[in-house]
Amino acid sequence: MSLPVEKWAEQVRTGDVRAIARAITAIENHQAEAEELLRRLFAATGRAYLTGVTGAPGTGKSTLVDRLAAYYRKREEAVGVIAVDPTSPYTGGAILGDRIRMQSHASDQGMFIRSMATRGFMGGLARATAEVAWLLDAAGKQEVLIETVGVGQDEIDIVRLADCVLVVLVPGMGDDIQNLKAGLMEIADIFVLNKADREGASRLEQQLMAMLSLVMPRDGWHPPVVRTVASESKGIESLAETIGRFRKHFEASGQRERKHAEHWKRRLLGLIESRLVERVLGGADGEARLAEMAKEVAERRKDPFTAVNEMLKKSGIGV
Amino acid sequence: MSLPVEKWAEQVRTGDVRAIARAITAIENHQAEAEELLRRLFAATGRAYLTGVTGAPGTGKSTLVDRLAAYYRKREEAVGVIAVDPTSPYTGGAILGDRIRMQSHASDQGMFIRSMATRGFMGGLARATAEVAWLLDAAGKQEVLIETVGVGQDEIDIVRLADCVLVVLVPGMGDDIQNLKAGLMEIADIFVLNKADREGASRLEQQLMAMLSLVMPRDGWHPPVVRTVASESKGIESLAETIGRFRKHFEASGQRERKHAEHWKRRLLGLIESRLVERVLGGADGEARLAEMAKEVAERRKDPFTAVNEMLKKSGIGV
Repeated sequence: MSLPVEKWAEQVRTGDVRAIARAITAIENHQAEAEELLRRLFAATGRAYLTGVTGAPGTGKSTLVDRLAAYYRKREEAVGVIAVDPTSPYTGGAILGDRIRMQSHASDQGMFIRSMATRGFMGGLARATAEVAWLLDAAGKQEVLIETVGVGQDEIDIVRLADCVLVVLVPGMGDDIQNLKAGLMEIADIFVLNKADREGASRLEQQLMAMLSLVMPRDGWHPPVVRTVASESKGIESLAETIGRFRKHFEASGQRERKHAEHWKRRLLGLIESRLVERVLGGADGEARLAEMAKEVAERRKDPFTAVNEMLKKSGIGV
Repeated sequence: MSLPVEKWAEQVRTGDVRAIARAITAIENHQAEAEELLRRLFAATGRAYLTGVTGAPGTGKSTLVDRLAAYYRKREEAVGVIAVDPTSPYTGGAILGDRIRMQSHASDQGMFIRSMATRGFMGGLARATAEVAWLLDAAGKQEVLIETVGVGQDEIDIVRLADCVLVVLVPGMGDDIQNLKAGLMEIADIFVLNKADREGASRLEQQLMAMLSLVMPRDGWHPPVVRTVASESKGIESLAETIGRFRKHFEASGQRERKHAEHWKRRLLGLIESRLVERVLGGADGEARLAEMAKEVAERRKDPFTAVNEMLKKSGIGV
């Protein structure tokens, strides 16, 4: 086992597309070898710049990411794109869109695009996305773009992986800035006003600016608003420049290490949690034991604290 | 210690307002005696009906909850209200509004209102809210209304506590149904179209109905849309009747037990997680140890998996 993983890691490092794809599948399926592989690749990470792109459905995120990726490719940077699609009965189409995107870049070895669906990741999507970013970083991608719909905590956790977070807005969708989720506002490093040729763009920009003027700059950075019309490739260069400016500001201000240390605190905590829960609820009958306990509690035969203490005792962890 | 807690529990059971308030403070501050108290009260729970009310800021949730509470009081049901205010630099005013509400019911012993802020609950707000609901249930409140802004995963976890979930919408806020968070759509048992006297109410209702027609009924229930003008107490009775109808449907279909068992599975899992993490990172130096480890990882001196394994080994849990 050890030898193949070593070879596999080497293939990933050279940017071998098949080796990368196989690794992502291993991560998605939570295979034990994925951990061994990632462990071996870790020293080669920390070079990629991660840009997170989030916004409501219909804001044109995919097109924006696509154009930004093309821009970086033109400058001969290796690019990785991770598109996270929260599957919901109300959405759809994202996967189709992704397939079309893949085709248009299919012949480009410097571009790796992968979409990940929520399905099967119950609470672990942020972790899987982080691990794929880690993989692409080790594979030499200089720009990693992570795209996700700004829906819940899981999506917020995903964009928080990024060095730079773009929040995409469009005029006319929920005329009021009030509608914007508070959580998203707080993580935005740059606002992208996409579809800026539409009516209401100036009004939205004014509202945004008014709101931003009330907010203290974070580490000396006041989130700017960049206008784009991604479908016509307008404003992409200006956006890329703003991302570059943020990167320089952040690195110069010395806040980068602090942010990364914070980031790793969260991730280590998440890892500890999942390890421990696996220990208690792992094994073939883990789920059944939990269900049995939940039934007893729901029927008031046992209180939740006693139930949990008993489960921990049985796993040899004690209280 | 044991005797006072016993007496305290008894006071809570009789609905003593001071004893309840003191218990909530103990829950909020994560005091060890809160667990002992809740454990003693558990057998007395399971009687209250929990209604969750969620929606974007500005939809008039507080007024709606207020009027619904007044309606239940008129029918001589004991009512508890838990208003969860996610504090954010962009919101505010909720606490002030709450104070005004408390005053108007101050002389009513059958009504208990408590607002809870996000501050200080890092990831534990859903748990604290659930424990306060447990307390109010044991205190004999027949109707417990849980109000929260539909923002992130935490808020979704909060409303999922409820037996019945109301999602509040108003005309003119984000004209498009598309703006509605997918997560909220999926947990709604009843849609409340508040401020229904405003322009655009019929259009919004049509959009909602069109969208709902695409969705499979859950356990034979198709979420209805109820129109209200809460500020004028219009539609409140009809809403209360719809909640009652949902309750009957749910209990008759035999799905209630299944839902409660699912609910307790999630909660037990959460309890297991927090217990275990406390075990590894508890104590005065826990946070410092995590920070040190995160720094080593951020600097690539150690990979995350090795770091976590070492931490677990040190806490005597092993790998």
